[in-house]
Amino acid sequence: MGLEEKMQIALVGLGKMGGNMVRRLLRGGHEVVAYDRDPAAVARVVSEGATGAASLADVVAKLAGPRAVWVMVPAGKPTESTIAELATLLAKDDIVIDGGNSNFRDSIRHAETLATKGLRFLDAGTSGGIWGLEVGYCLMIGGDRTAFEHVEPALVTLAPPEGVAYLGKAGAGHFAKMVHNGIEYAMMQSYAEGFELLKATEFGYDLRAVTKLWNRGSVVRSWLLELAEKAFVADPELTQLKAYVEDSGEGRWTINEAIAHAVPVPTIAASLFARFTSRQDSSFAMRVVAALRREFGGHAVKGS
Amino acid sequence: MGLEEKMQIALVGLGKMGGNMVRRLLRGGHEVVAYDRDPAAVARVVSEGATGAASLADVVAKLAGPRAVWVMVPAGKPTESTIAELATLLAKDDIVIDGGNSNFRDSIRHAETLATKGLRFLDAGTSGGIWGLEVGYCLMIGGDRTAFEHVEPALVTLAPPEGVAYLGKAGAGHFAKMVHNGIEYAMMQSYAEGFELLKATEFGYDLRAVTKLWNRGSVVRSWLLELAEKAFVADPELTQLKAYVEDSGEGRWTINEAIAHAVPVPTIAASLFARFTSRQDSSFAMRVVAALRREFGGHAVKGS
Repeated sequence: MGLEEKMQIALVGLGKMGGNMVRRLLRGGHEVVAYDRDPAAVARVVSEGATGAASLADVVAKLAGPRAVWVMVPAGKPTESTIAELATLLAKDDIVIDGGNSNFRDSIRHAETLATKGLRFLDAGTSGGIWGLEVGYCLMIGGDRTAFEHVEPALVTLAPPEGVAYLGKAGAGHFAKMVHNGIEYAMMQSYAEGFELLKATEFGYDLRAVTKLWNRGSVVRSWLLELAEKAFVADPELTQLKAYVEDSGEGRWTINEAIAHAVPVPTIAASLFARFTSRQDSSFAMRVVAALRREFGGHAVKGS
Repeated sequence: MGLEEKMQIALVGLGKMGGNMVRRLLRGGHEVVAYDRDPAAVARVVSEGATGAASLADVVAKLAGPRAVWVMVPAGKPTESTIAELATLLAKDDIVIDGGNSNFRDSIRHAETLATKGLRFLDAGTSGGIWGLEVGYCLMIGGDRTAFEHVEPALVTLAPPEGVAYLGKAGAGHFAKMVHNGIEYAMMQSYAEGFELLKATEFGYDLRAVTKLWNRGSVVRSWLLELAEKAFVADPELTQLKAYVEDSGEGRWTINEAIAHAVPVPTIAASLFARFTSRQDSSFAMRVVAALRREFGGHAVKGS
């Protein structure tokens, strides 16, 4: 299919990411069949030009073969059940694309399971967050190459210029996205440590000025630093935030895979552990250390 | 002085950075008095329009007061001796700017010493490397605010748009540059760990494709990642490089200051230590670990 061609594609899961992807596809002139468990989410994109579907069976009924269904639901059980149900509904040569943050091992398994029914699978590592609608989504694709070529017109619409690539067999897309997120954890932590050190000094730095400056010609300029600049402009002391950071699993997987391949990843590991520490009210480890200091040296400790 | 005004300024030290800064100042229409220990370096910029000087005394003789002298020589002894000599030559209200990677504690001391003679001091943290000529140098300025205002037309020429800011009293510029470089160490290590993990897999990633992709719309896009893309295009396996990385001191200072302020900087520390490890032929620590494994568990070890 030529890259300028318009195609038909289904989008399952109309959350923050999926809803905006429908919008970007519609703006690109594609025909989008949209489904979500929440009928209100379907109604919203129908009002913007999508064709609504009432169920996965309805999605399949409204597509012409070979069908392409982009699954954009949370990783884990929602993705598992959606792909399992699609496997019972789709026909030979149809394509399932998992655009969520699935573990690459699950994607390898999905490709194998779907292949037994003659279905094609793509794992699409997707980066861009809520900015994707405007900027485009960076798409890291693994899986069946013929399927990639079939859906490329839609991928090209979703991505910024040159922001999509076929990276290899099934799993290659989600593995690359996993590593991308591991790097992201460590980059965020790198900046965060630097800002905390600047704040700790007697210089009274205005972090709005520092981030604005660093984004203009410095070696550490980046999109993340542009987001930091926005955040400091909105709330210079970040007083509206609790120092509590969740993780969504991909940092853990990156460490697991680093262990599996015996690759040292000290900064990525440190950034993940910093998040764990941020969620502790009263670290047992640090109570152990306090206890030991008291035991051997009679050092003063703080009571709970 | 209005920001569009042209001014007279001296540049001492015409290396990679200093030479290009003279060029950028000349292109901006300023009058530059240039000096380097190496007469050939002086001759080069004279041929491009600078006024050459044969000594620091000659620099001072060729400037009208209040004089502004930008010192761009290596941190440590070269900077110390240059500033010490300038202190004996300059007159009240003249301005010394240290654009090198000096420790901020030295800059605080320089400001104090020069102030006793009525001289004004600025510490200019300078980022941009060999790309500065084209892009402009990000300038983080600390020191005397009247001096900053006096030399602002030259600073604005050296920097990209909005790429210069007065950050606070003496030391604030070099401290910010130090932290900037600490962040830079950790960001570089973040990417490096991710790329090594990608290489370790069975997916056969083409890192030229991955970096190109990640630079287009992904969350980890940055100027450093653009440099990585260039590096992988030139040498996809980096076979021309030894896995040996120097450090230039600012990472160490960042850790020292983090310790002084009791700020946890695990990723910056890990990135510095990774460089130290890269320079070891035969780590004594790892020989200790091998010895202990043999002692308690009879584990096989490798002989030297």
